[in-house]
This record gives sequence, C-alpha cells and structure tokens, in this order.
Amino acid sequence: MTLVQKLRGTPVETVLVDRHNHHLFEPLLYQVATAALSPAEIAQPIRAMTRGFKGMTVLLDEAVGLDVPGCSVLLRNGGAIDYDMLVLATGVEYNYFGHPGWAQRAPALKSLHDALEVRRRLLLAFEQAEMIKDPVQRRKLLTFVLVGGGPTGVELAGSMAELARFTLRRDFRNIDPASARVILVEAGPRLLNGFGEHLSEYALRSLQRMNVEVRLSTKIDRVDDGGVEMKDGRIDAALVVWCAGVTGTPAAAWLGVKLTRQGLVPVGPDLAVPGHPEIFVVGDLAVVTGPDGQPLPLPQVAPVAKQEAAFVAKVIAARVARRTPPPAFAYRDRGSLAIIGRSAAVVDLGWLRLDGFAGWLFWGIAHIFFLIGFRNRITVFVTWMWEWLTYGRGARLIVDP
Amino acid sequence: MTLVQKLRGTPVETVLVDRHNHHLFEPLLYQVATAALSPAEIAQPIRAMTRGFKGMTVLLDEAVGLDVPGCSVLLRNGGAIDYDMLVLATGVEYNYFGHPGWAQRAPALKSLHDALEVRRRLLLAFEQAEMIKDPVQRRKLLTFVLVGGGPTGVELAGSMAELARFTLRRDFRNIDPASARVILVEAGPRLLNGFGEHLSEYALRSLQRMNVEVRLSTKIDRVDDGGVEMKDGRIDAALVVWCAGVTGTPAAAWLGVKLTRQGLVPVGPDLAVPGHPEIFVVGDLAVVTGPDGQPLPLPQVAPVAKQEAAFVAKVIAARVARRTPPPAFAYRDRGSLAIIGRSAAVVDLGWLRLDGFAGWLFWGIAHIFFLIGFRNRITVFVTWMWEWLTYGRGARLIVDP
Repeated sequence: MTLVQKLRGTPVETVLVDRHNHHLFEPLLYQVATAALSPAEIAQPIRAMTRGFKGMTVLLDEAVGLDVPGCSVLLRNGGAIDYDMLVLATGVEYNYFGHPGWAQRAPALKSLHDALEVRRRLLLAFEQAEMIKDPVQRRKLLTFVLVGGGPTGVELAGSMAELARFTLRRDFRNIDPASARVILVEAGPRLLNGFGEHLSEYALRSLQRMNVEVRLSTKIDRVDDGGVEMKDGRIDAALVVWCAGVTGTPAAAWLGVKLTRQGLVPVGPDLAVPGHPEIFVVGDLAVVTGPDGQPLPLPQVAPVAKQEAAFVAKVIAARVARRTPPPAFAYRDRGSLAIIGRSAAVVDLGWLRLDGFAGWLFWGIAHIFFLIGFRNRITVFVTWMWEWLTYGRGARLIVDP
Repeated sequence: MTLVQKLRGTPVETVLVDRHNHHLFEPLLYQVATAALSPAEIAQPIRAMTRGFKGMTVLLDEAVGLDVPGCSVLLRNGGAIDYDMLVLATGVEYNYFGHPGWAQRAPALKSLHDALEVRRRLLLAFEQAEMIKDPVQRRKLLTFVLVGGGPTGVELAGSMAELARFTLRRDFRNIDPASARVILVEAGPRLLNGFGEHLSEYALRSLQRMNVEVRLSTKIDRVDDGGVEMKDGRIDAALVVWCAGVTGTPAAAWLGVKLTRQGLVPVGPDLAVPGHPEIFVVGDLAVVTGPDGQPLPLPQVAPVAKQEAAFVAKVIAARVARRTPPPAFAYRDRGSLAIIGRSAAVVDLGWLRLDGFAGWLFWGIAHIFFLIGFRNRITVFVTWMWEWLTYGRGARLIVDP
C-alpha cells in the first residue's frame, strides 16, 4: 500500500495483486480475536483505498509462481502479468517449527479468517464449559495456551485475561469465567525480546497481576487436538494459539536465490535481489545487507516495511526518470509499542519510555492515528471508550462456519 | 427475548435455549449482506442482554425434539430439560417451494452466516467480472436475482442497486459496476403485499428509478448453479437470493397437532396449543384463532411476535400467582415500514403515510431506536451518517470461508 501510494503521480503503471480484497491493520487483529473489535473496523477494501490512482490496477488473485527469466508473475486463475520491475511484499507466515500439521490445531493470527476462528473457539469454550459437569473436562475447556511471548502473544494474553475476568464475569451460572487459565509459553528467557529489558519485566509483572501464567524458557514439543506437550508436562487446553517464530512465504523460493535459514530473501543495500536489479523485496520477507556486507538487525515490524517500500518507490521513480537512485536504505527507528491490557501498555521510543496508564493512552492514540480510514477511526474510538467504561466487548458473536 | 424480559421479577424460573449465542436484529440483516453494516452492529450476546436476570439460565444448544407427554425438551448435546410450561418461539424458515436442494444455490437471509455468505458472493462477483474478458460471462457475473418482493426483497434490491451505482462506481477499470443488473422477481401482481396499494406503487417506481428490473406475476420454475428459469425464459446470474415464502420450523411437527398448510401451529385465543394448556407458541410460527373460531389475519412481523410474547408472559405470571389470566390476545397494529434506498422509504402507520426523504428519516430513527444496545445505536448512527455523506460502505470485506 505504501509503495503504490508513493508511486502515485509518477508515470509508472502499477498492478497490485492480492488474494484478499482488503488491506488489514494487523496490529489490532488480536482485538478481533478477543471480540473487542469487528473485522470492518480494522480492514479497508484495497479498491476504496486506491480509488482515483491513475495508471493503477487492482487484481483480486493469488500469485502462484514466478518466471524470473521471462519477467512474468503467474496467477491462480491461470493468467500471468508481465513486468518491468517486480516488488515482492508477501511477508512471512507462522512457522510451526517444521510441523505443518500443527496449523490446524493451533491457529495463528494472520488474517481476518484466523481471528474470527480464534474468537469462535474462545467464546464456544466458555459456553461448553457452562453445560458440562465433569470438573476435569470443564477445567480443560477453560484453559487457553498461547505459544510465543512476542507482542502478539503478550497482547492476546492480556486481552483474553480481561475478557474472562471482566467482560464475562456475571454472564454464566455454573462456571466462574474468571477461573479460566490463560497460559503464555515462551521458549526464550524473557517476554518481548527486542524491547528494552525493563519493559519485558513490566510486561511480565502486568500479565501476572492479571493471573496470566507465564512460562519462560519453555519449549513446546508437540501440539495435538487436546493441548500441548512440554518437557516438564502436558497442558490440556480448549484452544492453542500460535504466536511464535515466522518463516518466509513460499514466494521467496520462486526467486531461485539462496535464502536465509528463516526462509527470507537477502537483498542488497538498494533492496534489490543480487543479480536481479529488476526485483525488489520489502517488508518482513527481506533481510537487508548493510554497506559492510553484514545483515542489518531490523525488527520485523510495520514501520520497517513502510520505510522500505517508500525507499523502493524512490528507486523505481528515479530509474524511470533516469535520475540517480537514492543511496543505500537506512532504517530510522521511531520506537516500539505493545499493550498488555486495560490501562497498561509499554512504549519504548528510545528517548521516551512509558508504561501503565500513560503508555496505554499513547498506544491508543497512536493506533487510532494509524488506522486506515476516517470512519474506522471514529467507530474504533467510540467502541474503545464504550468498552473501557463498561468493561464490555461489542463483538462477542459466534458465527458458525 | 421479550418473554424473558417480561418474566423478570416474577418467581418463574426460565431457561432460554438458542443455537446462536446472540440475539439478532433481523430487520437490518440485508445491510450486513450489502456491506453497509458489520455483524456486531446488529447483534448482541444473549448473555449480555440478560445479565443479572434472577432465576434465568441461558443455554447455547439446539432443541432437536420434544417429549410432549413427559414435558421435556431434547437437546442436541444429548441432554434434556423438563418444563412446567413451554413457549415455542422458533419462527419460520424460508421454504423453497418444496425444493430443499435450492437452498445451497440461493441463500436466504436468516442468520449472520447467511448475510456474510451473500456479501461474499456479491463482492466476489464484481472482482471476477473485472478479470474476465468474455462479455457473456461478464454479463452473468454482474447479474443478481432476488426471488420475492416482500420487504426483504425490496430492501435488498434497493441496497444492491446503490452498492453498484454509487459505492463501487469508480473502483474498477475494466467494468462499469453501474451496469450490474439487479432483478427482483415476484410471483404476485404487486410488491410489498400487505402494505397499502399506493406504497406498493411507490416502491415499484423507486426501484425502477434505481434501474432495478422488477418482474411481477412471474414464477420461478427452477434454481440451478447458473441462475433461474421461468416460464418466459432463463436468467443467468452470479447470485440468487431467496426472499420468498416461509414455512414453519421442524419444531412445529414435534407437537403432534394438525398444522396449517404453511406448516404453522394453530393456537387458541390464549396462544396455547389446543389440548395442551402448558405449551404456548408465539411469533411467526403461530396462527392465532380469534374469538369467532377464524384465524386472525396477523402479519409475520416483529411487533406481532413481541406483543404475543408479552401476552404469554402475563398468562404465565397469572397462572403461577393463581390469578385470572388476561382475556384473548389482540394485536395492536402500529404500522409498517420498508426502505427502498438512499432517501427513499415507505411508512404506513394507518393515520400517517410517508414516503421519500420523510419516510427515510422516520425509518432510520425507528430502526436506531429499536436496535439492541446503546453502543450499537451510536456506531450505527455514525456509520449511516458517514455512508450517507460519502456514498461509501464500511464493511466491504470478502472473508474466505
């Protein structure tokens, strides 16, 4: 989206291929999963966002292959698009530590479909627990495991704990929703790896205060339909959500170059694939080589992807106009944000660190600002204010698949 | 919902069984189908609506049978609930003129799931038409047929025509969305049967002004995957939506009494099943016998169902308190409303008839007033104002099944 916006007004003819008809504001996907927001509040049709962009075509289709020598992208519906320059921005997928079969059992949060599926399983578990008498079964139905202690895992854990403790509190007769266990399992020694140490500790304390069980330095050996297995035992759970390691999408392999161990594409300082100046990779899928030949330590977050796209737009526009393209890409870090729950978030801007209520306020304002679409900003603001005042959740709907 | 609300504060112990976890404001379902509203804006969790109701239990389950002599309702999950008094409020289903196979090909609007499926097929048809070159195929993809000219058919037709003519107008390159054909087929001689004649004519003129093709006195002989067949020809269509005749739910047959030709349950003036004073039927499923032994000519609309439920609540409360129950049920008609589109609606209150902008304003205020939940009223108001100003639609999302 950043790329086509930045190329607007240049003589470049752009074709945007996406298998979804909407652009998704992924940072709030966990709020759809926990019934706080509706899909339409965090997504916008790509056509509406690019209305009036001259020389631009939107195709709802899926790229299924690449003919690198022929400069052509192959599409699911059988067609192909020839290109002069190609930008791959397909991002990453969750990797299941080499166990693709776990994907069915432990959904990850990557699309609206995923988020609605997690929401459905989560709400259904409480309903089923209400009707069951067997205490072992009931305990299992009220146990939720999150694998991975990055921002997604931390935010989801906080939001789930609030749903159970506040929103559902007086809604059931036979169960106490507050007795639900939310367990966050992280393989590394601390949460929010990549943030400052003191913010990791704040996140841990906040989650523990909300009764989230955090298990650090714990590896998952197996995911099955009934829960997860670790070295030190097994957890029976109604729902396991995957928030751990990522891997490049299959598109990376179409390039025919050597990928990193994570399945990512190494690109040069101009973000082009070595040997293929006509192919760029931006976003989580790219590993940028610095001027010293070493990979730049860039986090896999939206601001990096957006800055890379803006850089590539400049390179493309310069080449088309036969001007000198800009020098090597450099990332300008403006900081990181994560939310743990009601009135608790962490903000690390380097020069400014906030937590607690101040962090939460900053987080909310920033996320409303970055939301796509003015109408979404209004309705998300109204929804959040309402939910903050009433402890309610507006989107507690189980829609059968 | 009306029944349990009215029984609140009485010593009656109530159990509400529903296969959905939410109460749905059905009159706005067509706006979910045409991407104007989100599911959460017209639905509310039953548990949230009945929070704090003493002596009340909510069960997310499906009634699958009835043991009338044993006074017990059988549930999908294997359990059963014994009752002293039973109220059936299962409503009606769309009947496919005896062709259950048509249900897959022509979805009807009864649940959120249905509405999201219609939305998905509708938006996908425009996307596919954009990519296809064959003019015959493209014409088919841009043809939508609605079967049945009642309020649902009329409202859906108007909303679909607006989506094509205004919202999507500048979003495509290869197709002109305004060339999409919306065809409304009605077996009877006029639209909105049950409303006053002059409002039927106003609806017809308004739809025609919006380029909806209305075919009156036309029967559908066959629905297949590619469209519909009628006596005077065939229409190839990307989407057929069923808005025609209804039939009682299977629950009616469990009672073991003779049903009407429509599959509805004849009940006495006290809304109890003859011979079973402990079983009441309310809403669309009931046909009420008047004091003269003839069925009352009640329309199948929400106000009738709500007044019947309030009446039965009084009968039950009186019986439990050993007071004399109220006399025979009588319906107080407060009028009917239907919307055709932007700034066009018909209102028939008997003493007041409105159409055009005044009708539209009245319709909007009434529907916001009857929406469940204060937050929904705010967000629907903001959404409608925004969409009215911009001609946009906030919920144009295709979420893969």
